[in-house]
Amino acid sequence: MFTRFFAPTIEVSAHCDLPCGVYDPAQARIEAESVKKICEKVADNDDADFRMRAMIIKEQRSELVKHHLWVLWTDYFKPPHFEQFPELHVLVNEATKLAGASGTKGSFDVATADELLGKIDRIAEIFAETKKG
Amino acid sequence: MFTRFFAPTIEVSAHCDLPCGVYDPAQARIEAESVKKICEKVADNDDADFRMRAMIIKEQRSELVKHHLWVLWTDYFKPPHFEQFPELHVLVNEATKLAGASGTKGSFDVATADELLGKIDRIAEIFAETKKG
Amino acid sequence: MFTRFFAPTIEVSAHCDLPCGVYDPAQARIEAESVKKICEKVADNDDADFRMRAMIIKEQRSELVKHHLWVLWTDYFKPPHFEQFPELHVLVNEATKLAGASGTKGSFDVATADELLGKIDRIAEIFAETKKG
Amino acid sequence: MFTRFFAPTIEVSAHCDLPCGVYDPAQARIEAESVKKICEKVADNDDADFRMRAMIIKEQRSELVKHHLWVLWTDYFKPPHFEQFPELHVLVNEATKLAGASGTKGSFDVATADELLGKIDRIAEIFAETKKG
Amino acid sequence: MFTRFFAPTIEVSAHCDLPCGVYDPAQARIEAESVKKICEKVADNDDADFRMRAMIIKEQRSELVKHHLWVLWTDYFKPPHFEQFPELHVLVNEATKLAGASGTKGSFDVATADELLGKIDRIAEIFAETKKG
Amino acid sequence: MFTRFFAPTIEVSAHCDLPCGVYDPAQARIEAESVKKICEKVADNDDADFRMRAMIIKEQRSELVKHHLWVLWTDYFKPPHFEQFPELHVLVNEATKLAGASGTKGSFDVATADELLGKIDRIAEIFAETKKG
Repeated sequence: MFTRFFAPTIEVSAHCDLPCGVYDPAQARIEAESVKKICEKVADNDDADFRMRAMIIKEQRSELVKHHLWVLWTDYFKPPHFEQFPELHVLVNEATKLAGASGTKGSFDVATADELLGKIDRIAEIFAETKKG
Repeated sequence: MFTRFFAPTIEVSAHCDLPCGVYDPAQARIEAESVKKICEKVADNDDADFRMRAMIIKEQRSELVKHHLWVLWTDYFKPPHFEQFPELHVLVNEATKLAGASGTKGSFDVATADELLGKIDRIAEIFAETKKG
Repeated sequence: MFTRFFAPTIEVSAHCDLPCGVYDPAQARIEAESVKKICEKVADNDDADFRMRAMIIKEQRSELVKHHLWVLWTDYFKPPHFEQFPELHVLVNEATKLAGASGTKGSFDVATADELLGKIDRIAEIFAETKKG
Repeated sequence: MFTRFFAPTIEVSAHCDLPCGVYDPAQARIEAESVKKICEKVADNDDADFRMRAMIIKEQRSELVKHHLWVLWTDYFKPPHFEQFPELHVLVNEATKLAGASGTKGSFDVATADELLGKIDRIAEIFAETKKG
Repeated sequence: MFTRFFAPTIEVSAHCDLPCGVYDPAQARIEAESVKKICEKVADNDDADFRMRAMIIKEQRSELVKHHLWVLWTDYFKPPHFEQFPELHVLVNEATKLAGASGTKGSFDVATADELLGKIDRIAEIFAETKKG
Repeated sequence: MFTRFFAPTIEVSAHCDLPCGVYDPAQARIEAESVKKICEKVADNDDADFRMRAMIIKEQRSELVKHHLWVLWTDYFKPPHFEQFPELHVLVNEATKLAGASGTKGSFDVATADELLGKIDRIAEIFAETKKG
């Protein structure tokens, strides 16, 4: 149920560059979910204008995915995290590439969007691990 | 635990104006949490430059709160929702005002940020109700 | 004649969130006029590239219409205005929807742009009424 | 009275780069009015935080003045206009400088804001002349 | 060779509106080079989706060209420069028009992009002349 | 001399996410030079308003440094580059951190700006190496 998300036991985490200390992989995930839905909707719709609008919005949403992931990589993750999770640099690099020209920006392929979501989930798991410590 | 948020049974909801159908009050809440943390950090820090940076960032984050709430009000909520929840127009209007000049933009008061968070939580509850449909 | 608009008896009204107290429905109207012209030009032009550019720009201009109307709704209009004009919440909500996916973003229909302009004119009338008081 | 501005005999003019053909010096003027009000409000208010917010917003509004004037200079005015009004290049250049570091960005001086408004009014007069032709 | 560009004898020049005093025509040129490459790639690629993406990005990059040139015109160049180089107003005006609807925004023509690059190079030469003084 | 930069033998390199193939570390460097000049100017100027404006602009310019470096890291550098230059992930991560809260955003220290410039120069060297291949 939705409201449980706002229950006090679930920390909504940090992202502004004061830094305020609030980061949350959900920001990238919400945009990536949006990208996936766009791909699905285009698959069900032959209208050329709709496809154009979908392209414009997919471009923006994919860029937001990249931005939110970059923020995590630079502003949240610290050297000890990179030591503890040696895959982290490559993982974030691949995830951001998957939201770019060779990924969701460059195609309407739902599988590509799913692959991106998979990477974001793995980043979210690592993020959750670092929060436990 | 964080990763449960990403469990398949919890729908991450919609927001782009295709519309993709993905909306999520979490977007406004994350920014508002950030605003609150900024207020708390300023209360603990006498440095004038820090206060200036905090002001700049609080201004941006508060604007994002307003934007995400406006998107919900215009793009997600439909006439039947407004009928079912007669408080909704005033609630969103007050919430966005609370993120403006007379609210978190205009002060470093933690109580104001909490009041804003309270409104966002109420909007999230209504949002969750409409999802149950 | 244009220059009369700048005559001292005509108040140019307010919009920044200091707040500076300067708001003006003309901002939304100018963007909506632009949206309408785009629709008219596309109706007269078969070039596919032109249509694409028109789509990109219509998307941006429609978003600006929404933004300017949201600013009026949150930053300019106060509780007494909403009491005096009970239609105001629904009016602004409908106007912003008309600049979205179900409105000018989603089609090149000139009639839709005209409907949006009609709503903005009604908002401008109410705005003018509140300025008299 | 405000609503006369929206009367059908008064053309609301052009600005997007389709181009839609809609341009309007009012866009620059509204932002410049906002800048002036900010300067006036700061003159009446000793609060340091208020001054900081005013600075942030004045910076943004001044940038918008520059942008709207640049758009007129590049997108609206054509070679015959520059021939007919030999002062036009220098006028727009000076106006945009007046909204920059050596103008309203760099000070809270109301007289500077008035000087900027004067230049915008002159540009608006020339604009109105070109519309008559 | 690239690294020579970063050698201490080559001044990287100025652009923020503090002003910091750092301006550089390279900013406009990099975006214009990008616009040209986009035109060339589209000429070699029949895919409709690719053309759409190219259009979206060309629109943004052309806008950046305009912005960087406007910044030079308003923030860097001073009255003595305009006296010394009487062609400067018209040159910058034409260059920004060439990055607009009647230029690179409005077509995928490589020759148009080259014409724009030519104007930027002439502006860069004048810029370099003013730096010598 | 400046104009040599525009000589045909020096490739101005790539950055948009078509991708157009044009990337250039000069974009990050220009912004970082600007940040350094801002720090120097503040050191020579006691005016509180000037410091505030400097803070606002330094925040924006530092963010641009981060953005341009992120684009290189995600869009330009490919797996073979990361293999050939094992320091690259950490180098870009450190450089972007140096343009953030713990770096140039968080202080007016000229030495910090210099440290950032040093990292950017190293990235530019690696970039130049990959172009030779």
